[in-house]
Amino acid sequence: MTTVRFQPTGKTCELPAGAELLDAARAAGVEIETPCGGRGACGQCAVRIVAGRVDAANLAALSATAIAAGYAPACQARLTAEAVTVEVPAPLDLSAEVAADPAADAAGRALLPDGEPPSPLVRAVHLRVPPPQPEDGLADLDRLTRALQAELGPGEIVCPLPALRTVAGALRACDGEATVAVAVEETPRRIVAVEAGSPAPGPFGVAVDVGTTTIAVQLIDLRRAAALATVSDYNAQIACGADVISRINYAQRADRLEELRGRALETINRLIARAAAGRGLAPEAIRAAAVSGNTTMTHLLLGLPPEHIRLAPYTPTVMAPGGPLDAAAVGLAIHPLAPVRLSPAVGSYVGGDITAGLLCTDLARGGADLSLFLDIGTNGELVLGDRHFLMGCACSAGPAFEGGGIGCGMRAAPGAIERVEVDPAAGGARVWTIGSGRPKGICGSGMISLLAGLFRTGWLDPAGKLARGRPSPAIRVDNRSASYVLAVADETAAGRELVISETDIENTIRAKAAIYSAFSLMLRQVDLTFGALTKFYIAGGFGRYLDFDDARTIGLLPELPRERFVYLGNASLAGSALALVSGDARRRQLALARRLTYLDLSIVPGYMEEYTAALFLPHTDRERFPRVS
Amino acid sequence: MTTVRFQPTGKTCELPAGAELLDAARAAGVEIETPCGGRGACGQCAVRIVAGRVDAANLAALSATAIAAGYAPACQARLTAEAVTVEVPAPLDLSAEVAADPAADAAGRALLPDGEPPSPLVRAVHLRVPPPQPEDGLADLDRLTRALQAELGPGEIVCPLPALRTVAGALRACDGEATVAVAVEETPRRIVAVEAGSPAPGPFGVAVDVGTTTIAVQLIDLRRAAALATVSDYNAQIACGADVISRINYAQRADRLEELRGRALETINRLIARAAAGRGLAPEAIRAAAVSGNTTMTHLLLGLPPEHIRLAPYTPTVMAPGGPLDAAAVGLAIHPLAPVRLSPAVGSYVGGDITAGLLCTDLARGGADLSLFLDIGTNGELVLGDRHFLMGCACSAGPAFEGGGIGCGMRAAPGAIERVEVDPAAGGARVWTIGSGRPKGICGSGMISLLAGLFRTGWLDPAGKLARGRPSPAIRVDNRSASYVLAVADETAAGRELVISETDIENTIRAKAAIYSAFSLMLRQVDLTFGALTKFYIAGGFGRYLDFDDARTIGLLPELPRERFVYLGNASLAGSALALVSGDARRRQLALARRLTYLDLSIVPGYMEEYTAALFLPHTDRERFPRVS
Repeated sequence: MTTVRFQPTGKTCELPAGAELLDAARAAGVEIETPCGGRGACGQCAVRIVAGRVDAANLAALSATAIAAGYAPACQARLTAEAVTVEVPAPLDLSAEVAADPAADAAGRALLPDGEPPSPLVRAVHLRVPPPQPEDGLADLDRLTRALQAELGPGEIVCPLPALRTVAGALRACDGEATVAVAVEETPRRIVAVEAGSPAPGPFGVAVDVGTTTIAVQLIDLRRAAALATVSDYNAQIACGADVISRINYAQRADRLEELRGRALETINRLIARAAAGRGLAPEAIRAAAVSGNTTMTHLLLGLPPEHIRLAPYTPTVMAPGGPLDAAAVGLAIHPLAPVRLSPAVGSYVGGDITAGLLCTDLARGGADLSLFLDIGTNGELVLGDRHFLMGCACSAGPAFEGGGIGCGMRAAPGAIERVEVDPAAGGARVWTIGSGRPKGICGSGMISLLAGLFRTGWLDPAGKLARGRPSPAIRVDNRSASYVLAVADETAAGRELVISETDIENTIRAKAAIYSAFSLMLRQVDLTFGALTKFYIAGGFGRYLDFDDARTIGLLPELPRERFVYLGNASLAGSALALVSGDARRRQLALARRLTYLDLSIVPGYMEEYTAALFLPHTDRERFPRVS
Repeated sequence: MTTVRFQPTGKTCELPAGAELLDAARAAGVEIETPCGGRGACGQCAVRIVAGRVDAANLAALSATAIAAGYAPACQARLTAEAVTVEVPAPLDLSAEVAADPAADAAGRALLPDGEPPSPLVRAVHLRVPPPQPEDGLADLDRLTRALQAELGPGEIVCPLPALRTVAGALRACDGEATVAVAVEETPRRIVAVEAGSPAPGPFGVAVDVGTTTIAVQLIDLRRAAALATVSDYNAQIACGADVISRINYAQRADRLEELRGRALETINRLIARAAAGRGLAPEAIRAAAVSGNTTMTHLLLGLPPEHIRLAPYTPTVMAPGGPLDAAAVGLAIHPLAPVRLSPAVGSYVGGDITAGLLCTDLARGGADLSLFLDIGTNGELVLGDRHFLMGCACSAGPAFEGGGIGCGMRAAPGAIERVEVDPAAGGARVWTIGSGRPKGICGSGMISLLAGLFRTGWLDPAGKLARGRPSPAIRVDNRSASYVLAVADETAAGRELVISETDIENTIRAKAAIYSAFSLMLRQVDLTFGALTKFYIAGGFGRYLDFDDARTIGLLPELPRERFVYLGNASLAGSALALVSGDARRRQLALARRLTYLDLSIVPGYMEEYTAALFLPHTDRERFPRVS
C-alpha cells in the first residue's frame, strides 16, 4: 500500500500502487474538481507533487511551466510504490448560500389559480375507523382499508410494511380517529402514513429542480397548494464535471456513478432540511416530491448508468421511471414512503426539466399561437410550437449564465452583481448586487448587463475585445490580453478586486451564440421567422430579472417587441411544483412529453455556420438587430 | 454506568442503573432463555449473582433454595449503581443440526401432479429486445416493456429502481437477448431481475414454514416445480419465549419486537443459505418466497406489534399483507426484489400455516366428505369441514411434541429417539433413532411411542405415574417423584444418560389432552362424532412417521380405522411450496381462508371439563378407547 498525504489539510490515505490519485483524494476526503469529468482534458484537477512521485500518463492539458513546477492532473496520475505528498490548490468557492428567490418571499404563495382545487400527489384523509369486533373476521388493515375506500372510492389500496407496522397503534390511540396519507394517483393506491387523531397541518411536499449547475428546492403545503420557501445551491456534482458530458464520462466507473448520485442527494437533502427547518417542520412531515431535471441529471440521481445518453443513437434507460418510486428508494431524506414523481423526458437532450417548464406556458394549455420556450441553464433547451406541433432541441451553452467558467462568476445569490452601468466616458462600472450588499462575484444577468453596457459605450468591440486604445482606469492590458476591473478590492465583500477577463467575455459570447443559433435554426426548420412568434418564454435562474434590452443588445435574444417576452424564472421548479399539487398539470405534462418531437441540431445543415456567425456582438449579420446597429 | 460481567464467558457490558439484567445480557451478546417471555413466571432465566447486587422485584418463580444460593430471574432484575458479576447457567443445547426430511431426500421431487404445468410466483421470460433506434422516442425500458408485453400479454409492467439500473447494460451485452424474471401475479406485474443472454437454470424459490419452535425451508426449482432440498432448525426466538403468548409478552417493548424479528430472520436466512449452498446456488438466484406461519409468527416476522392477538377481541393487524412484499422489505437474504407471498390467515389463532396445510388435503379441492385436519405444533390447530362448511379452532398444546418442555427432548433430527419398545418384564427400553446413530435425545414421536409402550406394559398408570411398586433397573424413585432411564450414559452420543421425568410425562399428557379435547369439542359443536369422519389428516414435524397405534394408545388420536388417518408431515411447508409453484393453489388457498370460520374454544361450554377428562391415558372415559381398555 502506498501512503498519500494531501497538503495543506494534512489528510492521508493508503491505496495500492496503480490507484488513481483522484481516488486517493476522494478516499482521504479531499475535494479536487474535475470539470471535464476525469478525461485529462481540462487540467483543472492539477495538483503539485511535493514529495515522492506518481505515474502521469497524460499531461497534455497542462502548460510546460506547470509540468516543470511539478504539477500533474489528479485524474491522470497513478500511485507508484513510493509514498507521495501532494499539494492541492484552493478549490473554487462554491459557497453554500441560499439564493433569495424573491418570487417565493411571500409566504404561502398560491400555486394554482383561484378556484382550482388542489389535487396533490398525496392526500391526507381523515377517518373514523370502527373498533375491532369479535369474530367478524376483519383485521385492522381490513377495517382501515374499508374506511379509506368509503372516502376515496372503491378499488385496491396497498399498505407497505413500514406503514403497516403503525396501523394497530394508530387505530387504537384515538378510538379509531386517524389521518391517513395516501398516494392517490398510484395504481394501486398506496398508504404513505397512518397517524392517530385529526389532521395536523400539511401534508407537505417538495418540488425539486436538479440542474447541472444549480439545484433548487421549493417547500409546498399540499393541502393549500401554496409555496412556503424556496432554496437553492450549487449541485455538489460540479466537482466531478462542469457539464453533462463531463459527468457522463466521470460516471463510467460504477463507484463514481454512485458518488455522483450521492453528491446530488447530498445537495438536495441539505436544501430540503434547510427549507423544512425554516418552517419548523421535520423532514418526515414531507410526504411527496416532484423532481425535474435534464435526462442526465435524472439518470445520475436514480443511479442509472448514463453513458448511452452520450453515445449514438442517444438512448436513455428511461423517459419516466417504470412504476411508482418512493423517497427511500430514491434516497430523498423525507418520509421514506413519500411518492417521488419524476417529470417525463422526451429524449436524451430534452428532459423532464423542459416538460416541467412548459407547464408554465400557454403551450401546455393546447390553445397557443406560435410560441418559443427557452430554458437557459448549463444546457440551453428550446421548444417551438403551437396548437398543432411541438418541437424541441438542445444546445450546449455551458455554465456561463450560471456563473460557471467566469473567473469571478457566481450564482444569482446574495452578493452577486446582477446589473452593471458603464460610464461612457471613463469606462468604469457602477454595480448593483442581489441583496444590495458588497459584491462577491457576478451572476448571469450581471454578465449580460456588463457586456451590453461595455458594448453600447464602445468599450467592447463586436468580437468581444476590450478597447485597448482608449485609456481607462478600469481596463488593464497585459501583453495580448486585456481585462476589466469590475470592482476594486476595498469595495468588495472579500476585499479582493473583481476582474473580468477577455476569456470570461468569450465564454459568455459562446453561450449566447449557442442559444441564438439554436432558435434561429429551429425556426428555419419550419420555415418561420422570429416575427411569427406571439410569445417568447424565457426560463432560467437569472436572479430577480433578465433585462431584455441588454439581452437583445448582446444578441442573446432576437429583436422583438418587449411585450412578447415572458420571463418565467426557474420554470423547471415552478412546473415541478404544479405537478406536485395538480393532477391536471400531471396529465398535461405527460401529454406534452408525448407530443414533443426532438430535433437533433447537430445534424441540421448549416449548424456550424449559424453558430459561428453568432459569435459577434450582437451578430455578424447586423441587420438582424436593427435597433442595436 | 454500571459494569456487568457475565461468567463463564467473561463478556461485559455497561448500562445505566435501572436497566434490566436481561438487556445487559443481550447487549453483551450472552444468551439467556426466557421461556415465559420475560414476565417472571417461569424462572428459567435465573442467573446467579456472584459479586455485586441487583434489584430483583419479583422472585416468585424461584425456589427458596435458589434465592438463598443467590439466583435471580434475569427478566426481573435491574442494575443498581454497583458493578455486578453474573453466572449464567449453560443454555439448552439447541443444536443447529439439519433435520433430515426423508420425503425430500429424492432430489428434484415433483411438487405438482403429472400434467399440471407450473405457474410460479416468478417467471423467467426469454426475450429478444430490438436495438435502440434514433429518434423513435423509445428508451431502453420502453423497448423492454414492449417485448415483455408481447410474451406476457398487454397491461402495465413496472420496473423497480434496482432492476432499472441493470437494464441498459443487460440489453446491450448480448445484442438484446435477455432473460427477465417477472413477478407475474402482482398488480401491476413487476420486473424482478434483468439478465443478458439465454436463461440460466432456475429461477429458484423457497418455501418457508415459520413455526413457533421449528423453522423449515424448502428450496424449489420454480421452472420444474421440483423440491431440491429441505432443511430445518429451531426458531432462534425460542430463547425469548417457549410459546406464542410468551413471545407476544416479550415483544411489548419495541426493541424486543425488533429482536424477535431479527431472530426469526437469522434462522430463516441461515437455513436458506445452507439449502442454497448445498445446491451450489447463490442466494441471489432465489427469486421468490412463499412463507407460512401462525398469525403471531407472521406478525413477528414482519415486525408488526402482536399484542392485540393476545387481547380481546383478538384482532391481528393483517390476515394477509396489504400489497406485494419483496425480500428486501421483509429481510429475507435472497434476491432483494423477489416477491414474498405470505399465506393468508383466518384469525389470530388460525394462521397461514393452516391455510397452507389445508392445500395438502381434499378439503382444498372443495369436493370432500367430512374430514378433520390436525396440525400438531406448539399450538394445535384443527379444521373440520366438508364441501358445505369449514370450521377451525386452536388449542395450546405446548412444545412437548417438538421436544420442548421435555428434559432430554429434541426435534426430529438425526440422533433423536423416534421409536421405543418397552420390555414387558424388565421395564427397560429399546430405542430407534433417526439416522440410526447413538441417541442424543427424544423427539415427539419417540415420546408418544415411549408413553404407549410403558402404558401397554403396565409400567405407567393412567394418571401418568411410573410403577413404583415393580422393581426395574429403568425406574428410579427419589422421594415422591420417579423417573425413567431411557438410555444409559455409555449408549448415548454425549455419554450422558437420557432420563424422562414424571414432569416430562405430564407435559406430554397435557399436550395430548389439549388436542384430543379440542377435536371432541369441535365435533360436538356440529353434533357429529368421530365415526362420521371419512379422513383424519395429521400434520406436524414428527420426523419420519407418527405411529397411529401408539397415538391412539395414549389417547392423542381417536379410535378410528387406520385407513382413515393420513399423515401429511410438515403440511405448512408443503402447502407453501404448492403456493409458490401453482396459481391454482394460491387461488384455492385464498378461497379457503375466506370460507373458514373460527371457533373460539375457550368460550365453548364444557371446555375445561373435556380437557380435564383427557388428562388420563388414554382418557377418563375408557369407552372411547375400546381397543385400549
